[in-house]
Amino acid sequence: MREWRSILKLEAEVRFAGDPMNESTTVSHTYLSQRAAWARGQPISYLMAQALAQPELISLAAGFVDQQTLPEVPVRTALEALLSDATDARAALQYGTTIGYPPLREAIRARARQADHDLGEETDLSIEQIVVTAGSNQLLQLVGETLLDPGDIVLCTSPSYFVYLGTLANLGARSIGVAMDEEGLIPEALEEELARLEDCGDLARVKAIYCTSYFDNPCSVSLSGQRRPQLVDIAKRWSRQGRIHVIEDAAYRDLRYTGNDLPSLRAYDEEGDTVIVAGTFSKSFSPGIRVGWGLLPEDLVGPLLEQKGNFDFGSPNFAQHLMHTVLDLGLFDEHVQQLRVGYRTKLDAMLQAADQHLGPINGVRWIAPTGGLYVWVTMPNEFDTGPTGPLFDRALEAGVLYVPGQYCYPREGPRYSNTIRLSFGVQPIEAIDQGVRALAVAIREALG
Amino acid sequence: MREWRSILKLEAEVRFAGDPMNESTTVSHTYLSQRAAWARGQPISYLMAQALAQPELISLAAGFVDQQTLPEVPVRTALEALLSDATDARAALQYGTTIGYPPLREAIRARARQADHDLGEETDLSIEQIVVTAGSNQLLQLVGETLLDPGDIVLCTSPSYFVYLGTLANLGARSIGVAMDEEGLIPEALEEELARLEDCGDLARVKAIYCTSYFDNPCSVSLSGQRRPQLVDIAKRWSRQGRIHVIEDAAYRDLRYTGNDLPSLRAYDEEGDTVIVAGTFSKSFSPGIRVGWGLLPEDLVGPLLEQKGNFDFGSPNFAQHLMHTVLDLGLFDEHVQQLRVGYRTKLDAMLQAADQHLGPINGVRWIAPTGGLYVWVTMPNEFDTGPTGPLFDRALEAGVLYVPGQYCYPREGPRYSNTIRLSFGVQPIEAIDQGVRALAVAIREALG
Repeated sequence: MREWRSILKLEAEVRFAGDPMNESTTVSHTYLSQRAAWARGQPISYLMAQALAQPELISLAAGFVDQQTLPEVPVRTALEALLSDATDARAALQYGTTIGYPPLREAIRARARQADHDLGEETDLSIEQIVVTAGSNQLLQLVGETLLDPGDIVLCTSPSYFVYLGTLANLGARSIGVAMDEEGLIPEALEEELARLEDCGDLARVKAIYCTSYFDNPCSVSLSGQRRPQLVDIAKRWSRQGRIHVIEDAAYRDLRYTGNDLPSLRAYDEEGDTVIVAGTFSKSFSPGIRVGWGLLPEDLVGPLLEQKGNFDFGSPNFAQHLMHTVLDLGLFDEHVQQLRVGYRTKLDAMLQAADQHLGPINGVRWIAPTGGLYVWVTMPNEFDTGPTGPLFDRALEAGVLYVPGQYCYPREGPRYSNTIRLSFGVQPIEAIDQGVRALAVAIREALG
Repeated sequence: MREWRSILKLEAEVRFAGDPMNESTTVSHTYLSQRAAWARGQPISYLMAQALAQPELISLAAGFVDQQTLPEVPVRTALEALLSDATDARAALQYGTTIGYPPLREAIRARARQADHDLGEETDLSIEQIVVTAGSNQLLQLVGETLLDPGDIVLCTSPSYFVYLGTLANLGARSIGVAMDEEGLIPEALEEELARLEDCGDLARVKAIYCTSYFDNPCSVSLSGQRRPQLVDIAKRWSRQGRIHVIEDAAYRDLRYTGNDLPSLRAYDEEGDTVIVAGTFSKSFSPGIRVGWGLLPEDLVGPLLEQKGNFDFGSPNFAQHLMHTVLDLGLFDEHVQQLRVGYRTKLDAMLQAADQHLGPINGVRWIAPTGGLYVWVTMPNEFDTGPTGPLFDRALEAGVLYVPGQYCYPREGPRYSNTIRLSFGVQPIEAIDQGVRALAVAIREALG
């Protein structure tokens, strides 16, 4: 990463062809865009490089899904079905449309409506409001491109999904943190922040509120049932100087191990003009296939598709046909059931390891989730878990990699350096215990 | 398309909650970004809508590949191999890295070097300079994001690939046309344009020269062997106020039906700092799988990956493993051989139909290509082939859809309304003849 940073300083590569005052003097710089400058300094490459450089490390950092649960058998079954008919197979190998494969969008629609219906809520949703993307991240990016100019504001839970914070920075947008607790985003804190922004004349720049409503990354906290309608109501009430959308990131909705599902925020958006939902099969089925989607207010579909039309005119069609076949044959639901059993065991293992190894250390606490892939650990105040603090290198030496929580805070608002994101997704049970034990050793050392 | 245009006028949806002077008055607008405004008005959706609305139309418009040649058999073979080992299968279904799957990048590297080596040119290329993208279009977009600020200039052949012109417009960049002939971009015209831009103080805003060097879209013209080193030399000589990259779009390189291959522009970039190559398996194998790549100067790799990291942190891994297996088993080369035979027959059919039906019409002429997917037709001067001209609706009535050539001209520079892009990729032989005949009928009517 350091290597190309120097490039960004726009260093001149000077090639003198004779007299430096001569007209033919060639001074070649590569000038990069403003966006390239905004894109800098995301932590994910650094963390991945650490993991790759030391393969013996137990990485509790990666948000990858469990390698052992990846659905090779269902995928083989679905592909056999899809490729058994030459015409169907060729259709899958051809270009599709920008908005996405209609039968897949119909299946996504049916599932979204059914999920809320089962909870006693009805969600009006037409197939024309569903856009298929390469993972939910592409949807988040396209929404950003469509709604945000440099300097525009997105209010984000603090902490938030760090890749999305990078996306916002890349677009030149401001991310401002709003406090959350174990029930998710705190409505009063959101109202306070909106009032503050109005006071300083910035309300018109607030374009969206971003909330991972189910088992969020990094805390595995869900927005409580009570707060869901409140959040939508606040967005609508404060849309005085321009619409404030709610971007509901539902990437982890299916990764629920105990307790009941909750209705999507869309269920409380009566006018259907406020909530944007980002969904994906990456966490619940396969990130390698990489099919996500957006459920959009009608008036955003056209503008978003124009951008997508200019950039890729539709996400890979073969992957869409494959995911449709997986859903159609009932293989998805079956897989999610198995996944839940597997992840629940791993979550239990991590919580048990935390109780055993971290519990006795004064001032270390964590949130015990009921879904998702992460456990969020808080260290004593003032303790720095970052790469230059007393813990990070000690943890690497002890053989464990984690994500310093400081990467997960929006660019504006409080940033805490004493937090850690642990993932139980990738490692086998024994390694989870071993990793948490190693972390405990490093913490004790760091605390002196 | 019209529907959401009205949205873009930022029409206010006014909801009065009581007294309009009261503070609780809610006036909600959806304000879209500057980029959303720049994204407007691309023709591709309009043309696709025409084709979908009249399924009995013979579309000579779509740049789709031939449905009958799509490689379902090789794909089935490759998938059986890929999925036969559970560990390999799971690796393909997991997240990959942002830069792309190393064995696929190694295969791309070997092919790129071999192709130029066979022509007596050597190309230095490390695997670290190869980034895998979702089609070559995503590479073009990422390069744009990395190099271009709004107002920056890309010099493009006139005409050019219209989706890329949309991408540039979407980024707020200026596309300026440079004349071409049947040997591709005219070096003298390029120098003249650069001199003109220098005179008006805009040279520093010129960031790239875009050239589809093999069988371009829309003309199926290749840049001649003689002009290749000239183009690279011009870019280097004019990089006085900042590097001017050459973006070589090589999407159609493999679709060569007669004649010899030509070396990539990279072969003439001795310092390796100027030429960016965009490649893809979409045209030569399957657009539904959608795997493309970039061959990049070293100093651009990091900045481009930072953007990609923020937006999708890597293109779909399963598709990359699949394409690698296809290459590894020798299925790709076999397929390309068959494809060439099939497309050559179709090209011959279109040229024969043109001779027969268009030949007798005064003032109608076309370029006879040796590769690619298109035949570029020029009508008499002043004749308007666009949707509001005398031909377009007559052609639809006669049962044929084409791409008005006017969409293919950069935003600045001459735009000719008397050109047509015909594609022979999708239609069967008989329909190609029928379509060209219908077009001839419509042209005769339109000419009165």
